[in-house]
Amino acid sequence: MQKELLDRFLSSFNLDRKLIKYDIEACIAWITTLFENKIIDKKQSSRLIKVLKNLKKQKDLKNIQAEDVHYAVEKKLERVLKKDKYLAGVIRTARSRNDLVVSDERMYIKDEINQIIVLLKNLISSIVEVAQKNLDVPMVGYTHLQPAQPVLFSHYILSFAWWFVRDIERFKDCYKRVDVSTLGAAAFAGSSFEVNRQKVAEKLGFLKVSENSVDSVSDRDYIIEFISCCAIVMIHLSRIAEELIIWCTPNFGYISLPKKLTSGSSIMPQKQNPDYLELIRGKTAKVISDLIGILVVMKALPLTYNRDMQEDKVYLFSSVETIKDCLRVMRVIFENLMVNAQRLKEDIQKHDFIFATEVANFLVEEMKYPFKLAHKKTQLLIDYCVKTNKKLKQLGLKDYKKIVSREFTIEMFEKLNRKFNNSYSNYKTFGGSSLPQVKRQIKNIKKLIV
Amino acid sequence: MQKELLDRFLSSFNLDRKLIKYDIEACIAWITTLFENKIIDKKQSSRLIKVLKNLKKQKDLKNIQAEDVHYAVEKKLERVLKKDKYLAGVIRTARSRNDLVVSDERMYIKDEINQIIVLLKNLISSIVEVAQKNLDVPMVGYTHLQPAQPVLFSHYILSFAWWFVRDIERFKDCYKRVDVSTLGAAAFAGSSFEVNRQKVAEKLGFLKVSENSVDSVSDRDYIIEFISCCAIVMIHLSRIAEELIIWCTPNFGYISLPKKLTSGSSIMPQKQNPDYLELIRGKTAKVISDLIGILVVMKALPLTYNRDMQEDKVYLFSSVETIKDCLRVMRVIFENLMVNAQRLKEDIQKHDFIFATEVANFLVEEMKYPFKLAHKKTQLLIDYCVKTNKKLKQLGLKDYKKIVSREFTIEMFEKLNRKFNNSYSNYKTFGGSSLPQVKRQIKNIKKLIV
Amino acid sequence: MQKELLDRFLSSFNLDRKLIKYDIEACIAWITTLFENKIIDKKQSSRLIKVLKNLKKQKDLKNIQAEDVHYAVEKKLERVLKKDKYLAGVIRTARSRNDLVVSDERMYIKDEINQIIVLLKNLISSIVEVAQKNLDVPMVGYTHLQPAQPVLFSHYILSFAWWFVRDIERFKDCYKRVDVSTLGAAAFAGSSFEVNRQKVAEKLGFLKVSENSVDSVSDRDYIIEFISCCAIVMIHLSRIAEELIIWCTPNFGYISLPKKLTSGSSIMPQKQNPDYLELIRGKTAKVISDLIGILVVMKALPLTYNRDMQEDKVYLFSSVETIKDCLRVMRVIFENLMVNAQRLKEDIQKHDFIFATEVANFLVEEMKYPFKLAHKKTQLLIDYCVKTNKKLKQLGLKDYKKIVSREFTIEMFEKLNRKFNNSYSNYKTFGGSSLPQVKRQIKNIKKLIV
Amino acid sequence: MQKELLDRFLSSFNLDRKLIKYDIEACIAWITTLFENKIIDKKQSSRLIKVLKNLKKQKDLKNIQAEDVHYAVEKKLERVLKKDKYLAGVIRTARSRNDLVVSDERMYIKDEINQIIVLLKNLISSIVEVAQKNLDVPMVGYTHLQPAQPVLFSHYILSFAWWFVRDIERFKDCYKRVDVSTLGAAAFAGSSFEVNRQKVAEKLGFLKVSENSVDSVSDRDYIIEFISCCAIVMIHLSRIAEELIIWCTPNFGYISLPKKLTSGSSIMPQKQNPDYLELIRGKTAKVISDLIGILVVMKALPLTYNRDMQEDKVYLFSSVETIKDCLRVMRVIFENLMVNAQRLKEDIQKHDFIFATEVANFLVEEMKYPFKLAHKKTQLLIDYCVKTNKKLKQLGLKDYKKIVSREFTIEMFEKLNRKFNNSYSNYKTFGGSSLPQVKRQIKNIKKLIV
Repeated sequence: MQKELLDRFLSSFNLDRKLIKYDIEACIAWITTLFENKIIDKKQSSRLIKVLKNLKKQKDLKNIQAEDVHYAVEKKLERVLKKDKYLAGVIRTARSRNDLVVSDERMYIKDEINQIIVLLKNLISSIVEVAQKNLDVPMVGYTHLQPAQPVLFSHYILSFAWWFVRDIERFKDCYKRVDVSTLGAAAFAGSSFEVNRQKVAEKLGFLKVSENSVDSVSDRDYIIEFISCCAIVMIHLSRIAEELIIWCTPNFGYISLPKKLTSGSSIMPQKQNPDYLELIRGKTAKVISDLIGILVVMKALPLTYNRDMQEDKVYLFSSVETIKDCLRVMRVIFENLMVNAQRLKEDIQKHDFIFATEVANFLVEEMKYPFKLAHKKTQLLIDYCVKTNKKLKQLGLKDYKKIVSREFTIEMFEKLNRKFNNSYSNYKTFGGSSLPQVKRQIKNIKKLIV
Repeated sequence: MQKELLDRFLSSFNLDRKLIKYDIEACIAWITTLFENKIIDKKQSSRLIKVLKNLKKQKDLKNIQAEDVHYAVEKKLERVLKKDKYLAGVIRTARSRNDLVVSDERMYIKDEINQIIVLLKNLISSIVEVAQKNLDVPMVGYTHLQPAQPVLFSHYILSFAWWFVRDIERFKDCYKRVDVSTLGAAAFAGSSFEVNRQKVAEKLGFLKVSENSVDSVSDRDYIIEFISCCAIVMIHLSRIAEELIIWCTPNFGYISLPKKLTSGSSIMPQKQNPDYLELIRGKTAKVISDLIGILVVMKALPLTYNRDMQEDKVYLFSSVETIKDCLRVMRVIFENLMVNAQRLKEDIQKHDFIFATEVANFLVEEMKYPFKLAHKKTQLLIDYCVKTNKKLKQLGLKDYKKIVSREFTIEMFEKLNRKFNNSYSNYKTFGGSSLPQVKRQIKNIKKLIV
Repeated sequence: MQKELLDRFLSSFNLDRKLIKYDIEACIAWITTLFENKIIDKKQSSRLIKVLKNLKKQKDLKNIQAEDVHYAVEKKLERVLKKDKYLAGVIRTARSRNDLVVSDERMYIKDEINQIIVLLKNLISSIVEVAQKNLDVPMVGYTHLQPAQPVLFSHYILSFAWWFVRDIERFKDCYKRVDVSTLGAAAFAGSSFEVNRQKVAEKLGFLKVSENSVDSVSDRDYIIEFISCCAIVMIHLSRIAEELIIWCTPNFGYISLPKKLTSGSSIMPQKQNPDYLELIRGKTAKVISDLIGILVVMKALPLTYNRDMQEDKVYLFSSVETIKDCLRVMRVIFENLMVNAQRLKEDIQKHDFIFATEVANFLVEEMKYPFKLAHKKTQLLIDYCVKTNKKLKQLGLKDYKKIVSREFTIEMFEKLNRKFNNSYSNYKTFGGSSLPQVKRQIKNIKKLIV
Repeated sequence: MQKELLDRFLSSFNLDRKLIKYDIEACIAWITTLFENKIIDKKQSSRLIKVLKNLKKQKDLKNIQAEDVHYAVEKKLERVLKKDKYLAGVIRTARSRNDLVVSDERMYIKDEINQIIVLLKNLISSIVEVAQKNLDVPMVGYTHLQPAQPVLFSHYILSFAWWFVRDIERFKDCYKRVDVSTLGAAAFAGSSFEVNRQKVAEKLGFLKVSENSVDSVSDRDYIIEFISCCAIVMIHLSRIAEELIIWCTPNFGYISLPKKLTSGSSIMPQKQNPDYLELIRGKTAKVISDLIGILVVMKALPLTYNRDMQEDKVYLFSSVETIKDCLRVMRVIFENLMVNAQRLKEDIQKHDFIFATEVANFLVEEMKYPFKLAHKKTQLLIDYCVKTNKKLKQLGLKDYKKIVSREFTIEMFEKLNRKFNNSYSNYKTFGGSSLPQVKRQIKNIKKLIV
């Protein structure tokens, strides 16, 4: 029983079997180069490569018990080679598990970044579609969860798209630092066999070769940076989830979700809960905790390789799985959510104090007040509304004359009222809430996600 | 007392006063553009800019009590303008604290990144110098804190330099995403005043203008990404600290620190502790906790601005201060540490099993064994050494013949012994431990930190 | 400048000066015991104690520059003793900064726990008061931010009180482990002077004496546990903050905050934002990050004392300050929030599907359905309501007969309608939402916070 | 494929199937009480209980696909009951998944705490055994990883035992807050069925019944507190691991590990690495990250139940598994490690400056110096040793006369030299390093772990 405990505790095979494909590819590239560099002979290399290629197709390591994926491949090789099994031992030449695992991980992350970027683009695309379908729907914009200013719904949700545009950039920058081959660093000192590391790198599709063998096996920056990028994506997803959850609550009712995207209750028959959104929000904690995990593993670890580093895969794989599923589910949500335009419009009328900034701006333009004074005057108008239980739009010219200034004219009053009606698309500054700006954004975003 | 509590609780001025310089610069650029865009008149803008420029020189906000730096500047303006104090209110036009604080922070981070890059280059440079001074000093390289393979000391510590080279790249990538002007996004919707945001951005030295006003005030990615970069630097520093602390312990004795870099004990008269290194290691936790802090603040926060985001500066400033001090202190340490070459060499002899890989490699080359077999044969040699309490180099031809193979010849034996002597610089692969590779690295690193 | 950097980097005096009171008390107790144990003489001890007592009154260490509070006290002593300054050195006898700082911290935490418990009781008391004032106000209870079941407002907010009741228990348990004297453990080995450690402990009000000197100086569990307790309190506060922020948004409008507890906008004149609540929510991240901080400092630190541990105070003090301020502010909020009973009631009518569980229960009781069947039948009723745009209470006997069962009688129909009216206080199970249960809770809570 | 994604994303059954045993027990207790309270009839309850009891024995849910364990049990019930399958729906009466999952988790945690306490006691016991076997072995004690003072090895490692003693206390305190039944809180409002919750609690072995139904389903404190306790245990284990890893490095060589507790290298034939210790150190990050995870999930979550809370089990189960395995492995390590007493003793001679404190203490006692002066004089002795390359014990009377004082007599000199020889067991203060104190500790610890 103690043996079982010790074996289980040491083994990472349950996790790193996910790297099998990359491990075999690395082995093939390695063997080929060993042959090219005349370290092993033609016969050895041909035989090994043939077996490895077969193995790659089957991916069959089910019956192998091993400490890790590298030993599992070796074991499998021995089994297949049977009486030539000694030959399997050739793959260890000038190479260590230390540099191999880093290579496997780097290949894996490169693939995953590419996939994640596709998922990000898909999500962006579905957000843009919702924006396009609701191009001129107005809504109450909030700060501090309090009604703030009127804004275009399309403009508002495009902000989500920009978040993910930046996420893509960030992953691409990260990719550059992942795209480095470490094979040939061996245990940490390099090797006395003269292996052409550049050739190995080329075969495996790496852009660069690591310049220092100690660094090559000791470093896990590429994982930390990658999980950081994932964590930022999750922050974005969690905020969108929170926003949509609030919009789904009947007291807001800005959007609805179809039944397949909600979940019921075992006790309350009427329930349709936005569980998917809540889970996205909840799973954000996972990736944040993964980031902490890998940081804590690496903090103050002496060089070069230490077994603690085996734990890197726990956090790496968890982050990859979580972010990918959450991106997929969020896309389904954007593809299926229903925007309640009517409700959004009603709320604008209900909370018409959100036009106050427009009034203040108007006083600056027309009365030439410094903004702070205009702000104060408008506050008095609001106070008066509250006291008399009126809406802002219900105020008459008389009220403006009395509260703002005798100089406030009927022409101004009429002009102001015209302004009210479309102020949510009146923000003509670059990047502001207005139809032309929304269209410009959509055009730009589309170019970025081709 | 309740009022004191509430005011203190709400105010960020103790923290964000650090942004005063940037806040005034932003105000000046803003006022100038308001004038250029004919939103305010010449007289107003000239007067305000004059006062603001003075203010920037003095940086005197000591007697100002305010909720934050933005209000403090406004207050100060009012004080200076005295009877024209209403004019101060002009700076609020078409602008909100929401977009302003982001601009301030972005200008601040850009400056700090530039400073941090200089500090990183300085540190790299001092590491390279230590490597150069100890170019061909051999040492025991460790994995799992167990003697592993002989290596060049210079090669080993150059791995640290590569870490920081990557950190510089990372900060530069981060910089691109920070270098975006948000001024003019106002509260979050943009503004109905037609301000040329590109002009403001140019005046403040920003490369880009944010494309969506909601995104502009809601996003704190640039802080999370920046602190992530800092956290990775600290991971590096903590690992170097750990390594050096171990090297300082008399049982290793690989390096010594001068008295000014150690600290004594109030009770133990003999003590010279590496407190600076320990503090660097300890302060790593601060930046990791800062990263968590900002992530937790932002997680699931609905859009657009919420007051929680005020807390961003707690983590931002703490990270900046910690990382800068730690980089500076680590540089002093590298400039002053003494490498005990003698001791390093003695340890190689003491732990001569570290030549085992060389023996195995040799068996592959000479005996044409697959590596795994060579590995096993060498293990038998080691076992024999342990049993007979011998060093590896003390083994004779007879032992090789008996344990490895009858075929092991005297020529081989002599060749192997020649190999032993310089195996720490024998790793000729690209990036391996060998003098030419070390020199190549130094040349490359120097190019990168010019 | 390098010296300034190094001194600043090493010094903890900016932080640990907060411990001055405890440091002096510990010194006095120590000196007294040294005298009682005949290690120093009457004259020495009298003189030192007199000076220390004076120092305690003044707390004047403003002009002292020192590495830490312990050396600062020593320095100050030397200054006061002038020509007898050598005498100051006596306080170091059989004691080290290692055991002293732990004692200081433990005394500090004990005091802070006591204060925090008072703040927790105050907050509980103000919550209970709000409950009492709104004893029978009904409200919509939510799960997943979706209307779920009717409930008493008083019952609902009493759940907050129970959270803090448990927090008090947790702090009391923590206190037991803090209440241990470590003085006399010296550097980590104890001392060859025969000091009666029990006597020192008694003088300082400690219940226990630490049993192992190595443990005494190496351990920082008491800080981790204390900050854990703080973090849980903050989780509670953050959730209440979130809840109240939602209740404050006009679309809910369940509560209102007076102006002094909201904050305006520099650009939007109408704004009254719940900034205090948002800051409480935001500051939760601080304590979570503090917890991580201290954990990361301590992880994998070899014994006994290492300078990293100096950083413990960063996290300890930050947590104490954050939690105390947040508890105080939350209390002010509960003392000042206005419950909009009318609005709460209206929402119950608006969301009358929340009575669905009651209908299902009713079907179990009257029709003897297994609950799952009753649940399904009720779901059909809800579906019918949605389709026909009716409220649940608008359904007639005919509908029940058609959708539920032919057996559904007029008597049942009338009984069900009677049930609707007070179902929010109908949950008679122990701990359920009903007036007697609310009253019982209030009585029990009051007993616990006397 | 979308359906597969959505189902997988929502389901927690992969995780919470671990709770099956508790879920069935809770169901049985619930059904029994429903019958006792006349809510269901004899026939229904008998039938259900019989099936549930069978189910409990089989634990066979392999072919069940379900959203969670609660629905899985219900489904299984339906399958078994076949044509009476409607009866399965009875178990939902007056109960919700919200209160049920909390009950399941609480039962689970209670069991796990009991198991963990056993594991802690076992580990303590194996530490004590190592201490007993090496009762009077002296060693160099370190601070800052620098030789500090001589100490008994047994005393030193007993400090580990005290850590775990406190961990047991902490878990026991936590247990009190877990030992509360929430069944009957239903969705969050309680129930209109009159179920005797106390009876349910008794049947399930809970000491208390939760007093507020809203609190009952909203709270996850018990998990946070539990994982906090686990995190502190892991901090302890990580520090011991670090210590032992250092002791295993040949430059220290204080302990050795048998082959089964080390791991080799694929490239370096001589390697025997302390991988188990490194993994314990590395896995510490997991539990720290779990703690963060659950905190981040819960932060700012509105009441009552939200689906985010489903993620609690991710962290709970991970912590439980990690801590249990690490405790078990650490015990195996203590049972198998070999203490190199000879090496420990040699190191004391090698680092004989560790006697400096003893010299200073001696000067206080004999010369009546204030400690600080004695400290300074001893420092001069050390400086002299360093300059002349002598050991402290090699100094002669002449040196003392010259450096310390003319008054230093031959009698003092001889007395001092006698002191040197057993100073590692000379710390007679309570809890200090001395044989009687070690024996006292062992006696006390043994009492605590009976």
